[in-house]
Amino acid sequence: MKVNAWSAPAPGAALERFEYELGEVGDLEVVVEVSRCGICHSDIHMVDDDWQMTTYPLIPGHEVVGRVVERGRGVTHLDLGDRVGVGWQAAACMTCGDCLRGDENLCDDHRGLIVGGHGGFASALKVDSRFAFRLPDGIADDAGGPLLCGGVTVYSALRSAGMTSGQRVGVIGVGGLGHLAVLFASRLGNRVTVFTTSEDKAELAASLGAHEAVVVKTGEAPPRPKSGLDLLLNTVPAQLDWGAYLRWLGSDGTLVLVAGPGEPMPIAFWDLLGKRRRLMGSPIGGRAVMTEMLTLADRHGIAPIVEVSPLEEVNAALDRLRANAVRYRAVLRV
Amino acid sequence: MKVNAWSAPAPGAALERFEYELGEVGDLEVVVEVSRCGICHSDIHMVDDDWQMTTYPLIPGHEVVGRVVERGRGVTHLDLGDRVGVGWQAAACMTCGDCLRGDENLCDDHRGLIVGGHGGFASALKVDSRFAFRLPDGIADDAGGPLLCGGVTVYSALRSAGMTSGQRVGVIGVGGLGHLAVLFASRLGNRVTVFTTSEDKAELAASLGAHEAVVVKTGEAPPRPKSGLDLLLNTVPAQLDWGAYLRWLGSDGTLVLVAGPGEPMPIAFWDLLGKRRRLMGSPIGGRAVMTEMLTLADRHGIAPIVEVSPLEEVNAALDRLRANAVRYRAVLRV
Repeated sequence: MKVNAWSAPAPGAALERFEYELGEVGDLEVVVEVSRCGICHSDIHMVDDDWQMTTYPLIPGHEVVGRVVERGRGVTHLDLGDRVGVGWQAAACMTCGDCLRGDENLCDDHRGLIVGGHGGFASALKVDSRFAFRLPDGIADDAGGPLLCGGVTVYSALRSAGMTSGQRVGVIGVGGLGHLAVLFASRLGNRVTVFTTSEDKAELAASLGAHEAVVVKTGEAPPRPKSGLDLLLNTVPAQLDWGAYLRWLGSDGTLVLVAGPGEPMPIAFWDLLGKRRRLMGSPIGGRAVMTEMLTLADRHGIAPIVEVSPLEEVNAALDRLRANAVRYRAVLRV
Repeated sequence: MKVNAWSAPAPGAALERFEYELGEVGDLEVVVEVSRCGICHSDIHMVDDDWQMTTYPLIPGHEVVGRVVERGRGVTHLDLGDRVGVGWQAAACMTCGDCLRGDENLCDDHRGLIVGGHGGFASALKVDSRFAFRLPDGIADDAGGPLLCGGVTVYSALRSAGMTSGQRVGVIGVGGLGHLAVLFASRLGNRVTVFTTSEDKAELAASLGAHEAVVVKTGEAPPRPKSGLDLLLNTVPAQLDWGAYLRWLGSDGTLVLVAGPGEPMPIAFWDLLGKRRRLMGSPIGGRAVMTEMLTLADRHGIAPIVEVSPLEEVNAALDRLRANAVRYRAVLRV
């Protein structure tokens, strides 16, 4: 099958039209005809080769929604015509302790879809069926993509940090990740406090279910929220006032990072000690968490706020994302 | 009752003889006739007023073993003649969420025995009976004191970091705290790796049950241990190579600090992210954990290695502790 895609020919370059042959479909693979593909900051990092692991030409896109149009002989859990989603992860060893526990996202041999493979800014793609997830009917095509990457990332992080219900959950940053975190935390019965640098995002967060919004002025210490916090999720890739945020956490509170600064974070021992607080990182989510997240998004009507544009306008959409102008997640219609 | 004690008259001063009247015994208080009192680094910090919360004259000592010789009218769980121990904590509000959960050590109103009160370098002391713990018969007088502070501190930290059994537990530092951590972790069925700057402490750790000892040369990066780690306890109050230690932790591994540096610790986001690792602090332990720890110390024959000297030689013992010459916990016989 011939695929019509958009690819980056070199670091930082604009995307251009690109064609390639899908080739043979392996026993456990499926071919997905793409309907939508979200755009994530990681796509830009990969286009720019920020992580020194990009091979060019790069076809970005790892928030894929589409239909199964071909499947390998060993695929039993997906049928032709099934509507599926594919996120960041495309492979894992499937045999190590992490994989056996359902933590494929922690596997030493995990591989990202667009790391040495072709992504979803395309008419179709081929993927290991074990990392293609059937989408519940209640999840619209437009909404699916951002859930498969941003959604599972924040949901898995909140659960790993101990989120149940009835808790006081903080979210730093109201962007693509943060607004999904507000939705999951509030719809699952928690009191949510957001920290944002923008008045309009504070209002948006309230409309999504946040109970308190703290506006942090850039370069100033974040004001103390009215509510203490049981756990706190950071979605901002920058150096923040970690001491202040830690001190607002109650006993056994956890600050969980899905984004962080490039430079080391200065963490004071005393901010961790007295209340037995924790600091942790959390990367995407395993397959069990992915299916759980999709089920809950369906059950509770959790959908990202998206800007949809045609695949042909991918460069304009990337520019808006680079300018932090997207409210709150960009999706391409194929 | 008149108490014969040793007290510090001023910051950093040698201790001198000191007498005081115990005064009236409150409804929930007991008077303990002291048999032994351990010496902890915190005593030295308090003598030196390092934490700006010392009142002088200060009677140090918060690892007390003795017998109940008087009790208030409201005390029902301790009888006259009972052998009890008293650790760092002497009070908590007993009504907040932390206290109700049995985490009195996290209570905002917790008070240390020697913070505004008189400690155990003395013939007797008066204490809230709710913070006096009956000692199992199998715990010798000499062993009790260090368990009540150092023991509960490392035991609570290991449990809070998720220690069960069959795990790979690392311990940084083989001193008063570290050697107790080796005992608890190994006797409770874990594989123990110690990190120490001293060859003789590496040998001692092996004799206590450690399975691997890594000698870290001062100023050099710690060598990689043969075994990976599920959790890691730091007992050293210094700036260490946190990145190296974090990277040796497996998935969902926790680095738990009962000691740390005065300056902020530089923590790299990436060292936390990929394997979903955690960094936490843990202060002493609540009453439920204290009784659990004492029960297990009795059941498994866990006893600190101590140097016992008479109370009259307290200044020599403090000098040895200041010089890091104690192997591994100093105890005063009263």
